[in-house]
Amino acid sequence: MYYIAVVGGSQCDAALAALAEEVGTGIATRGGILVCGGGSGIMEAASRGARSAGGVVLGILPGEDPRRGNRYLTLAVATGLGEARNAVIARTADALIAVGGEYGTLSEVALALKMGKPVVGLKTWKIEPPQELDRGIIHCETAAEAVEAAWKAATTGWS
Amino acid sequence: MYYIAVVGGSQCDAALAALAEEVGTGIATRGGILVCGGGSGIMEAASRGARSAGGVVLGILPGEDPRRGNRYLTLAVATGLGEARNAVIARTADALIAVGGEYGTLSEVALALKMGKPVVGLKTWKIEPPQELDRGIIHCETAAEAVEAAWKAATTGWS
Amino acid sequence: MYYIAVVGGSQCDAALAALAEEVGTGIATRGGILVCGGGSGIMEAASRGARSAGGVVLGILPGEDPRRGNRYLTLAVATGLGEARNAVIARTADALIAVGGEYGTLSEVALALKMGKPVVGLKTWKIEPPQELDRGIIHCETAAEAVEAAWKAATTGWS
Amino acid sequence: MYYIAVVGGSQCDAALAALAEEVGTGIATRGGILVCGGGSGIMEAASRGARSAGGVVLGILPGEDPRRGNRYLTLAVATGLGEARNAVIARTADALIAVGGEYGTLSEVALALKMGKPVVGLKTWKIEPPQELDRGIIHCETAAEAVEAAWKAATTGWS
Repeated sequence: MYYIAVVGGSQCDAALAALAEEVGTGIATRGGILVCGGGSGIMEAASRGARSAGGVVLGILPGEDPRRGNRYLTLAVATGLGEARNAVIARTADALIAVGGEYGTLSEVALALKMGKPVVGLKTWKIEPPQELDRGIIHCETAAEAVEAAWKAATTGWS
Repeated sequence: MYYIAVVGGSQCDAALAALAEEVGTGIATRGGILVCGGGSGIMEAASRGARSAGGVVLGILPGEDPRRGNRYLTLAVATGLGEARNAVIARTADALIAVGGEYGTLSEVALALKMGKPVVGLKTWKIEPPQELDRGIIHCETAAEAVEAAWKAATTGWS
Repeated sequence: MYYIAVVGGSQCDAALAALAEEVGTGIATRGGILVCGGGSGIMEAASRGARSAGGVVLGILPGEDPRRGNRYLTLAVATGLGEARNAVIARTADALIAVGGEYGTLSEVALALKMGKPVVGLKTWKIEPPQELDRGIIHCETAAEAVEAAWKAATTGWS
Repeated sequence: MYYIAVVGGSQCDAALAALAEEVGTGIATRGGILVCGGGSGIMEAASRGARSAGGVVLGILPGEDPRRGNRYLTLAVATGLGEARNAVIARTADALIAVGGEYGTLSEVALALKMGKPVVGLKTWKIEPPQELDRGIIHCETAAEAVEAAWKAATTGWS
C-alpha cells in the first residue's frame, strides 16, 4: 500500500483544480491512498478525483473537528496540531505531489524533502538553494507525468 | 461516521486480548471506525476484531514508518511525534474505550477526558481526583456493555 | 542544569496556590529551572514562587501567542499544539511535581511516567493500575518533601 | 520581550558561521531572545554570538534529551517531536532570520511566512511562488541589515 500526498492551496482557480482532480484520479487508479490536509481548493479537488475512481482519501486536519474536512474524505484525522500537522502529512507519505500552492504548501514540500521523500511539482514553487543539494522538486508538465513520477519514486523506494 | 478509539497496552495476556478483540468486533458491527495507536497487544487484538467483522481500522503511529503498525490496520498515519500522538488519538475520537493498560493508556484516557470525550473502561485504571469532577471513566464489565456505552455516548454528542 | 516541571489546574483555591508557590520557591532555591504550562492557577503560583527566589521559569504554552502566559514566566514557548504540548512538558522535564489538578494534570503525570520520569504528588490524583507496575506517583505531604524528592530523583538520574 | 529565531543548516562553512554569529550578537545587543533549533552549524554559531553579548538563547530541540543541544543554549526544550518542532520555532518567534540553510531551514521559513511572521534572509533560499503573494523573504546583504530589518518588523507588529 502506497500513500501519495497531494498538497496545494485551500483556494485555487478552475484550471488548477482540474489538474489536482486529475492527479487524484491517477493516484486512485493505481491503487494508491491519497493523503492530504483535508481542506478545500486543491485538497478538495484531488480528493474528489480520487473518490470518483473508487479510491481512498485520508485527510490530516489541523483542527479539532474531524467533520470539518472536505466531503470527499474517506477518513479524517483531526490532529488539533495546527500547522504542525504538515510534518505528519510529509512523514506518512511515500511521495508528495504539489499543485500550485502558497506558504503552507511550500512548508510541506520542504518537510518532505528534508525527510528524504520524493516531491513532484505541477505549476508550483520554484526553489533555489543557497548551495547545491542532491535532490529537489521534480517538475512535471501534466497530471499524468506527475502521478507517474511520484508513483515510480514511491514504489521503488527512492529516498 | 463515528470514530471509536480503543486504547490499551502493547503487551497483554490472552484474556485481555480476547476482550479487546470483542470490543473491536462490536465497534465494526455498528459501522464505527476503530482508531488506535496501531501497535501490538490490545491495539492489535481490537484491530483484528474489527477487521474480522469487515470494519475499518485507522492506526495513529508514534514513529516514522507507516509499515511498522500491526497487520490489521486498514490505514496507518506515521506521525513521527512519539508519545504526543496520544493527543491526536484522543482528539479525533468521538469516544474512547480503555482496556487494561499502563501509563500510555492512562495518558490517552486523561487527554480524552480533558477534551470532553466520553471514556469507557474495561478492567482498566481506577482514578480518584483530588476534588470532585463532573465526569470520569464509565467502567463496564463486558465488551458488549462497553461498546454499547461508548457508541451511545459518541452518537448522542455527549461532551 | 535540571528542569523540574510543576503541573496542576488553571484554577485552584488559596491553599493549593500557596503550596504551589512554595514548591516553585523550593525549586528555584536549589537552582532548578521551573517548567510549566505557562497558565494561571497552580502554574502561576509556582511561577511566582520561583521568580520570588530569583529563579527562571520556562512556560510551554498550548496556544499561538507567547504573551498569553502568566506574568511570572521568564521565557515562553508558544507551541500552537493545544493539549499535545503536555507531552513536551513531560519530555523536557527531569522530574514532575503535580499539585492538585484535573484531567490535563493527570495526562502530564501519565505521560511523564510513561517516559520514565519521576513524578511526585501533592494533594493530587490517586491512581490504581489494572496490574502492578514498577513505579508510580511519589505522594508527599509538604512542599518541602515534594521538592526534596523530585530534586533527588532528577539529579540522581532515576528512570 | 521579543523572540527572534535564527534558522540555518546544522553544518556550514566558516563564512556563514561568522555571519550567523554576528546575527546572534546583534539580536542579543538589542535585548532580544534568540530562538533556534538548538543544534550545530548556524544554530550554534548564532547561539555563541548571542551569549558572547550577554544574551539569552532558547533552543527548541527535536529529540528527547535536553542536554543534546549546542553548549551555548541558556534553556533547552526537548520536544521529542522530530521535524514537527519547526512549527513551534516559527510559532513562538516574532521574526525569523534564515542564514543559508537546506530543506529544514526552508520549512521553517515557509511555516513562518504561512503564520504571517516576518522573515529575513542572508545568503539563503530564493523562492518563487506559482502566483503573486503579498509577502516574501526580505533579503539582506549583511548581518547588521538583517538584524535591523528583523527587529523592526518584530517590534512594529508586522504580520
